[in-house]
Amino acid sequence: MFKKILIANRGEIAVRVVRACKELGIKTVAIHSEADTGALHTRLADEHICVGPPEDSLSYRNIPNVLSAAEVTGVDAIHPGYGFLSENAHFAEVCESIGIKFIGPTSENIALMGDKAKAREIVAKRGLPVTPGSPGVLNNEQDALEAAKKIGFPVIIKAAAGGGGRGMRVVNKTDELERAFQAAQAEAKATFGNDGVYLERYFIEPRHIEVQILADQKGRIVHLGERDCSIQRRHQKLVEETPSPAVDDRLRREIGRVAVEAMRAIQYRNAGTVEFLLDKDQNFFFMEVNTRIQVEHPITEMVTGIDLIKEQIRIAAGLPLTLKQQDIQISGHSIECRINAEDPERFTPSPGLITRYRPPGGFGVRVDSAMESNTMVVPHYDSMIAKLIVHGRDRQEALARMRRALSEFVIEGIRTTIPLHLRILSNPDFEKGYVSTSFLERFLAQQSP
Amino acid sequence: MFKKILIANRGEIAVRVVRACKELGIKTVAIHSEADTGALHTRLADEHICVGPPEDSLSYRNIPNVLSAAEVTGVDAIHPGYGFLSENAHFAEVCESIGIKFIGPTSENIALMGDKAKAREIVAKRGLPVTPGSPGVLNNEQDALEAAKKIGFPVIIKAAAGGGGRGMRVVNKTDELERAFQAAQAEAKATFGNDGVYLERYFIEPRHIEVQILADQKGRIVHLGERDCSIQRRHQKLVEETPSPAVDDRLRREIGRVAVEAMRAIQYRNAGTVEFLLDKDQNFFFMEVNTRIQVEHPITEMVTGIDLIKEQIRIAAGLPLTLKQQDIQISGHSIECRINAEDPERFTPSPGLITRYRPPGGFGVRVDSAMESNTMVVPHYDSMIAKLIVHGRDRQEALARMRRALSEFVIEGIRTTIPLHLRILSNPDFEKGYVSTSFLERFLAQQSP
Repeated sequence: MFKKILIANRGEIAVRVVRACKELGIKTVAIHSEADTGALHTRLADEHICVGPPEDSLSYRNIPNVLSAAEVTGVDAIHPGYGFLSENAHFAEVCESIGIKFIGPTSENIALMGDKAKAREIVAKRGLPVTPGSPGVLNNEQDALEAAKKIGFPVIIKAAAGGGGRGMRVVNKTDELERAFQAAQAEAKATFGNDGVYLERYFIEPRHIEVQILADQKGRIVHLGERDCSIQRRHQKLVEETPSPAVDDRLRREIGRVAVEAMRAIQYRNAGTVEFLLDKDQNFFFMEVNTRIQVEHPITEMVTGIDLIKEQIRIAAGLPLTLKQQDIQISGHSIECRINAEDPERFTPSPGLITRYRPPGGFGVRVDSAMESNTMVVPHYDSMIAKLIVHGRDRQEALARMRRALSEFVIEGIRTTIPLHLRILSNPDFEKGYVSTSFLERFLAQQSP
Repeated sequence: MFKKILIANRGEIAVRVVRACKELGIKTVAIHSEADTGALHTRLADEHICVGPPEDSLSYRNIPNVLSAAEVTGVDAIHPGYGFLSENAHFAEVCESIGIKFIGPTSENIALMGDKAKAREIVAKRGLPVTPGSPGVLNNEQDALEAAKKIGFPVIIKAAAGGGGRGMRVVNKTDELERAFQAAQAEAKATFGNDGVYLERYFIEPRHIEVQILADQKGRIVHLGERDCSIQRRHQKLVEETPSPAVDDRLRREIGRVAVEAMRAIQYRNAGTVEFLLDKDQNFFFMEVNTRIQVEHPITEMVTGIDLIKEQIRIAAGLPLTLKQQDIQISGHSIECRINAEDPERFTPSPGLITRYRPPGGFGVRVDSAMESNTMVVPHYDSMIAKLIVHGRDRQEALARMRRALSEFVIEGIRTTIPLHLRILSNPDFEKGYVSTSFLERFLAQQSP
């Protein structure tokens, strides 16, 4: 097992990884930018080291600085968390080449799945269901038009190197296509440095369903059930839950089997997530693979009892997966609300000093956060300041518990999305589980005066 | 279902009950003494009302004042928590007589089980194993001596109306008996207003094992497994865990069956606990019944997923128990540490202002507390200020998680038992689960310089 791990991240996920390491008896090194001096993740770790100025490109994403910190502190592994360097194949490769274990998939896994068009091709070749779309990257508008006609409108153009909603355009009819194609290409180029785009059928009111996978170095693979992440705003998830209200035992087995097969096809290692669209007739289609631990991983932990970060570390250390598929039981229901430092109506960032912070507690309530009273929310990074996760015996109890916990959560000094979450949780459609990726947009439109 | 519940308690258990009520959609009324004005439990409840000066006999234990508060606020039920009026049969009876539901067992249950000597008699008559002892209350020293000779030394003299270690004396040989008898009688009289004492065999290094019971108004009874509460100082529990390292599946079924039979014998209603001694040869003996929710109830919730406070409320409202014995699964391992505002070496109270309070968080960590930064720990009540509860897939993970959570817990301004807990958790015997009710005394003797 590793003796010392560097955590190449900040905020709640850095705290999360420190906690897992402490429980495994592994020493930790926190890195931080100049904006994060004294942050909670640095105080909970055994050592901490500054890797640069506030801009993440100069600190948290700065490969030479992060690797220098790793060498100076003598760690034997690096956990990248999510975001930053977590899906950077080059970083994973450099780590491997200098003998520091990258806690995640292989650099080949990351590179392969980072090309979303290629990923779809591989999965389709295995005979697994993928969203109907262009076979690979589109060369020009003419190819795009042909592909769109074959698939049928509406379609969505996506960046091959993309994620997080950047470089995406929905196209409803032929004469919109050219402009959308050019705009998507330009945005993809600007955001990812790669103008490759591809095209998929655009589903009306689908659900976003993803399956958590664990795979060890010997290729043993299990899935840990699905997460329903349909509550999104501009492709950013806001509320996640498991089990999905739309997935029954039969569908769970089936979608789990497909997810495992897709990951086996690419010889995937460590923790990863296979994302699917689920339509109203319970047809599901592969979208992409996330080659990192995800923000919403705690809800899977709550219903399975399995600590995914510890499993990541064990797998990276070469230990065999001790879990068998039949041992993984889904028990109860879990929901996560992402609490962002944002104006809950206009979604503008609300950085500043948290003057008072009192997390909720009690049975079935988990808070993953790096905040406390008198903490500054700096404007340089993601606006998420806490994840509130609940577990209940069933969905109804989990909903009631989340409402209770949200109403108990005190964060003063800045604005947060807590009021928005409380409104979402009282929505009759949400309560019944009748949601899709269009839910939030419609919900917000109804709410606005 | 009830519309509004008054919580006749303070501190963490009042907060606990408010949370359960909120999740059930029931309004809450908090009561408080003048020392608890503005306390968290009053702020979380829908209404709050002052019931008297700091002394609990004049406020939290003041039956006329508590009932006036209940009538003024128009509640339909009262939850007594633990301590204070929770095991006061007269209070339960008065509540019943004025049409306010007492959320707990019947006044007959409380009165019957409040007489510990009588309780043993009833259980023994059913053919269930009780600690060998005097058949009932002892009339005089002569009776005590005869009983002790029959049972064999050492013996323990206990107050029939007792609890919490008051009125107890261990007697090792004949010539110690007279003095111990008189001392126990005097202490019982002074503490409980009743000088009845009885006598039991004193076991060497037994474990304290208790079984959680739920029984509805129709007499349906289930048990929810055991709790091992062997880590005690002067009969005050400090650390509790479930499952007990000394109880296997066979013993769990057997002790559970006996606990259910004992409760059936007295027509017990609502939540309750049957306490046993377990000797080194896995023989167990009935000690007494606790007719209230207990401090350590959360560890049972963590391994069963069942919210005991909600079950108490549902049962009191006349709803049938929906749980069947075969549905109750024990999953993983849970430990609770009671964090007291005390000097961790001398156990003297350490009231005062908590200048900074930061509870631990993350996976498998639960904190039940009424504290936050800038809270005054008042000297008038119990010194327990927080319960730290963890859950893990197995005992080893739960231990590691508890150590991690304890080391993360920040309470500044007063002294707490956190350092003591950290030392207990690193003790090799404790780590192996080799503990008995003598563990802590010996541990403390070894630690002292």
